[in-house]
Amino acid sequence: MAQIVECVPNFSEGRRGQVIDALADAVGHTPGVRLLDVQSDESHNRCVISFVGDLDGVVRAALAAARRAVELIDMNVHTGEHPRLGAVDVIPLVPIAGVSMEACVTAARALGAELWQELRIPVFFYAEAATRVERRRLPDIRKGEYEGLPAKLADPDWAPDVGEPMPHPTAGVTVVGARRPLIAYNVNLRTEDVDVAKRIAKVVRESSGGLPAVQAMGVRSAAGQAQVSMNLLDYTTTPVHRAYELVQSEAARYGVEVLESEVVGLIPLAAVADAARAFLRLRGFTREQILEAKLMEE
Amino acid sequence: MAQIVECVPNFSEGRRGQVIDALADAVGHTPGVRLLDVQSDESHNRCVISFVGDLDGVVRAALAAARRAVELIDMNVHTGEHPRLGAVDVIPLVPIAGVSMEACVTAARALGAELWQELRIPVFFYAEAATRVERRRLPDIRKGEYEGLPAKLADPDWAPDVGEPMPHPTAGVTVVGARRPLIAYNVNLRTEDVDVAKRIAKVVRESSGGLPAVQAMGVRSAAGQAQVSMNLLDYTTTPVHRAYELVQSEAARYGVEVLESEVVGLIPLAAVADAARAFLRLRGFTREQILEAKLMEE
Repeated sequence: MAQIVECVPNFSEGRRGQVIDALADAVGHTPGVRLLDVQSDESHNRCVISFVGDLDGVVRAALAAARRAVELIDMNVHTGEHPRLGAVDVIPLVPIAGVSMEACVTAARALGAELWQELRIPVFFYAEAATRVERRRLPDIRKGEYEGLPAKLADPDWAPDVGEPMPHPTAGVTVVGARRPLIAYNVNLRTEDVDVAKRIAKVVRESSGGLPAVQAMGVRSAAGQAQVSMNLLDYTTTPVHRAYELVQSEAARYGVEVLESEVVGLIPLAAVADAARAFLRLRGFTREQILEAKLMEE
Repeated sequence: MAQIVECVPNFSEGRRGQVIDALADAVGHTPGVRLLDVQSDESHNRCVISFVGDLDGVVRAALAAARRAVELIDMNVHTGEHPRLGAVDVIPLVPIAGVSMEACVTAARALGAELWQELRIPVFFYAEAATRVERRRLPDIRKGEYEGLPAKLADPDWAPDVGEPMPHPTAGVTVVGARRPLIAYNVNLRTEDVDVAKRIAKVVRESSGGLPAVQAMGVRSAAGQAQVSMNLLDYTTTPVHRAYELVQSEAARYGVEVLESEVVGLIPLAAVADAARAFLRLRGFTREQILEAKLMEE
């Protein structure tokens, strides 16, 4: 089957259109890679470039964009509201189809080694590629930001995974890793009482003892309903249907029904197939039985 | 989005490997078309070639294979257990993604016109492309078979849709049409009592007043369970989840649970997405939100 890996690097430039275009072009001109989306934010002064390809292709494209970022971005004059450590701030590799998480971790480690060897950027590995449990979460790694790097790297607990313990003079440090695709998933309740959604969210989210790899909060939807707004960080750990059903059963305790749910943005085919499989009690169902997935085989 | 049309022509040759290969090669060498599967049956003396492509591509591939079939197959010496009318027995066009049923009907009509103009094969249109209600079902069109064609075509009620009312001297007649993909779908019950499956099948199938576009029978599964074995002829009319839920609620009348269900062979992505959408009450969910489907866009 064709390998599909998504890569969504974040660069510390959200204002100069020519720089953002140069980064996107570096990705788009890499053979075997398909540019999906470029999003930039002026107040964050940051852009996110989404692309897919096979593992070799996305690693080459990420390196090509990193080369341009080092040429064009100077972190010493960078300001923005979003925490950041470097010109090439973070590079996540995301297995979508036909590729294992292990292979993405191996590729992330190789990409980190290249960033140091070619561009002299020290690298931290995070998420599934982390070398220590304290380095799994981006917020922990980002503490102190670019300006605090000289002090942070001098601490033996924060020696980079690759390279010398000194930030690149203009590009800082890069965080490279592998993670599952995030699914932004909301369940709207047949009530306007946001307190109900907040109580359900507390039961659902991992941080208060709920479902693993789930972030959740109770909010009011644009249409005025109480909404349990979730990020499903790993659909192989907590699938969409399990999140839905826990919200549904918790809502029933308040005499509240689920009105509807919604996926915001993209969802991998495997997560959709998992939901159909679970509800239909499908036995022996494989992704390759889906005609379009079969067509993507090589 | 990329157009995906499936074409599954049936040819009256299931014994001579070289002829079957020649037909498959004619398809496989057509640009823009992807050969998926070739199945032949010696007792039926018949083969089925599955391929996909855009509408233009599959029509060109079907014509290329038809040309070879007319050269290589003589219906006057053909014997086999499956009813048939011609060397190129039937050509169904099946919309999978990015193409409407109407466009497939139009293409089927154009393909029929070409079969007559170039190869002098008279054509009946069937299924969604039928010109009269009596011509919607293949078994009705096939009555009398190849040997009965001279008499059948002489009946004004059975004048061909395209061409003169005389069969091609060696290739007979071809039936061309457009239909939805068939989904072979079984629900296994937590009982060995096949009578329960037979009673449920009677409620479920269209022919005895059940769900439209559903064929169903009660059988014993390979593992010994009672099974409601179905063909879902149009998942846009009766989706998979509705068939599942009717079997489930009918089974409950006998105190029987659904053990599991299974898809035999292929299923279109849209049918899988429909099931997930229904059970998760997904609002505003589109096929393009599935990452892999987005990748197939052009």
